[in-house]
Amino acid sequence: MRTNLERIQRDVEALAAFNSTPGAGLTRFSFSEEHRKAQDYIVAEMEKAGLQVRVDACGTVIGRLEGEDPDAAVIMTGSHYDSVRNGGNFDGPAGVITGLETARVFQENKIRPRRPVEFIAMVEEEGARFGGGLFASRAMTGRLTAEELATFTDADGVTTGEAMRAFGLDPAAYKQAVRRRGEIKNFIELHIEQGPVLEAGGIQVGIVETIVGIKEVEVTITGRPDHAGTTPMEMRADAFLAASKTAIAANEAAVRVGEGTVATVGKVEVKPGSFNIVPGKVTFYIDIRSKKLACVDAVLDAVKEKLEELTAENEGLSYELRMMLATDPVDTDPHVCAALEQSARELGLSSKRMLSGAGHDAMVMADVTDIGLVFVPSRGGRSHCPEEWTDYDLLQNGIETVCATVEKLACDG
Amino acid sequence: MRTNLERIQRDVEALAAFNSTPGAGLTRFSFSEEHRKAQDYIVAEMEKAGLQVRVDACGTVIGRLEGEDPDAAVIMTGSHYDSVRNGGNFDGPAGVITGLETARVFQENKIRPRRPVEFIAMVEEEGARFGGGLFASRAMTGRLTAEELATFTDADGVTTGEAMRAFGLDPAAYKQAVRRRGEIKNFIELHIEQGPVLEAGGIQVGIVETIVGIKEVEVTITGRPDHAGTTPMEMRADAFLAASKTAIAANEAAVRVGEGTVATVGKVEVKPGSFNIVPGKVTFYIDIRSKKLACVDAVLDAVKEKLEELTAENEGLSYELRMMLATDPVDTDPHVCAALEQSARELGLSSKRMLSGAGHDAMVMADVTDIGLVFVPSRGGRSHCPEEWTDYDLLQNGIETVCATVEKLACDG
Repeated sequence: MRTNLERIQRDVEALAAFNSTPGAGLTRFSFSEEHRKAQDYIVAEMEKAGLQVRVDACGTVIGRLEGEDPDAAVIMTGSHYDSVRNGGNFDGPAGVITGLETARVFQENKIRPRRPVEFIAMVEEEGARFGGGLFASRAMTGRLTAEELATFTDADGVTTGEAMRAFGLDPAAYKQAVRRRGEIKNFIELHIEQGPVLEAGGIQVGIVETIVGIKEVEVTITGRPDHAGTTPMEMRADAFLAASKTAIAANEAAVRVGEGTVATVGKVEVKPGSFNIVPGKVTFYIDIRSKKLACVDAVLDAVKEKLEELTAENEGLSYELRMMLATDPVDTDPHVCAALEQSARELGLSSKRMLSGAGHDAMVMADVTDIGLVFVPSRGGRSHCPEEWTDYDLLQNGIETVCATVEKLACDG
Repeated sequence: MRTNLERIQRDVEALAAFNSTPGAGLTRFSFSEEHRKAQDYIVAEMEKAGLQVRVDACGTVIGRLEGEDPDAAVIMTGSHYDSVRNGGNFDGPAGVITGLETARVFQENKIRPRRPVEFIAMVEEEGARFGGGLFASRAMTGRLTAEELATFTDADGVTTGEAMRAFGLDPAAYKQAVRRRGEIKNFIELHIEQGPVLEAGGIQVGIVETIVGIKEVEVTITGRPDHAGTTPMEMRADAFLAASKTAIAANEAAVRVGEGTVATVGKVEVKPGSFNIVPGKVTFYIDIRSKKLACVDAVLDAVKEKLEELTAENEGLSYELRMMLATDPVDTDPHVCAALEQSARELGLSSKRMLSGAGHDAMVMADVTDIGLVFVPSRGGRSHCPEEWTDYDLLQNGIETVCATVEKLACDG
């Protein structure tokens, strides 16, 4: 391989040191002191790799390797380097390091691409500080608004705009980050899988065909908070019993419709919440994801049908349903997928076409360019926790695959 | 009727005024200022009714009407007058007022009972201040311990013993409250039903045959907190899905075993509690009650069977089960039941033999005497809330029934 395992490990460990919660996982919030130090490291490594480096209006570090045809549409690769609170060392940085290492390989091998190549490092993808998430990619695709900069605040009440200004950026200039359709030929992101599929299958490289569509609904079931001892079973309107049946219906529907569809009830509030009072109100959230919008909607329909059935059976029960989030599935580019698959094959790596069950910056970048998304295995499928881990050689497999593909797309395409 | 509706209403309203949360239901904690004022009212009313009044070592007000045979075993009636936080005006006071009004009827009608009659008003039945509950009846039956007085504390860290001392009682003398088996022939308690059965059936007086046995178990199901988007349905260990199935199994088992058996999951904690993470741990409480211990155990067995089945199906799931509370069913005395039933019939009132799904002081008093327990209807089955209500004429029906029965048992028995 042309990529270097020691350098990759050094990058991971160097970035992991810029952390506000040492000993309790990695916490690196956007526009913080840790962000500043990590940015300085990335800029320095890019400059060492011979790139022209700038930071765009919203904080994305862009290291450019000029092409023989400077006006050709750019090949871009990278990811984000902010983290959730008490997260791990790989969610985000894996893709940023892919860019750094690819730039080094280009330099060492004196690769002169026809197209310009841009290696990027984005911020606030997690939304852990300001809540919006996918910040830098939304900035690049024109989805960001002045209102968000003025109104989204962190836990201390600091707005995104104020934090940008304190970091040395001018929030009023946020539109300068926008990249127009046509400017970028492809964006390829490498990310850890954050799920168990690659590890369980012993597969080295995941090639994402579709990033799932998501619908998240808040369901509130209202019953009657009766005494648990004195109210006969047949006279109850038990909101938790109804919620349990609805959760099971969502689960069964996801299994039934298949196509990688998932449904999860992860947050549940039972009121009044006393062991000796029949629950009078339960609020819970159903997160439904699939590569096909029709599958998401089939699960949602099954949920609604179950709620209608339960409230028809028991007059004491009623429900409300509120849509919290709705995104459509996004397909990656078939030509980029084929190129990634070919690269993996040429490198002797096993690969697998798969779904992404989580959103990533690439999903947003699909607004303005044709994207590719590569997954490397996550140990135990864990992420967003201190245990998040990808063996360095497995990470290198993914980086090598992206590196070879970027070279092909930049030189031949 | 010999009882007086206006006096009953006046008693309810007078006691309701001794309240630390006016406008937000009734809150009258034991050994508080409100307790003091309510006790003063009760003592004064008892004295006006010609009773010899004392307060026992643990705070129970005892108004005694001497019998022609002062050494005969006593007929006793009463209940408690402490409340839960933000409760109602009837849970407890209804039975205390039964005593006050019965004493007045005895006085007005110059009834000279053969046996002594004791009208009592107890405290800390709810356990709302110190957590123990059924305090005064446990004191009278020898179940109270010095350890409890020294270690059970309120929200401010004040022990039960310290609160008693501040109220003018000597906690070291707590054993003086004990009544020996044989001293009391019968204890009859009137209480609001706190359930919907009497109202739904249009029945005026409930005559309790059995106070249910209770088992409360804490169940903790441990699964794996995976990403809700990236973890396929078949690779999950979803603790909430398992908890839902267990709650439904408990519910279905209670319906199946019948005999008035009830099972309730009222308190549920889902961890980590994020909409996009599969629940890794769920702790919930199952409260099972029945007149037959075998029925309680049948539901508990169904719960265990379901948990075994779920954890056998999915290696990622495990469970723990902890018994929080276990009490046996307590039967009331058949002769007292028959006497109450006859009184109701003679008064032209409809009555019904029924279960008590909640524990009451009478349940504890059964340690030393043969008990009777009378229910009056609760509007909407509601209790322990500001909406708790019993129409005054419905309360009077119950009081008249107890009054007639106390007279019979004290004069003839």
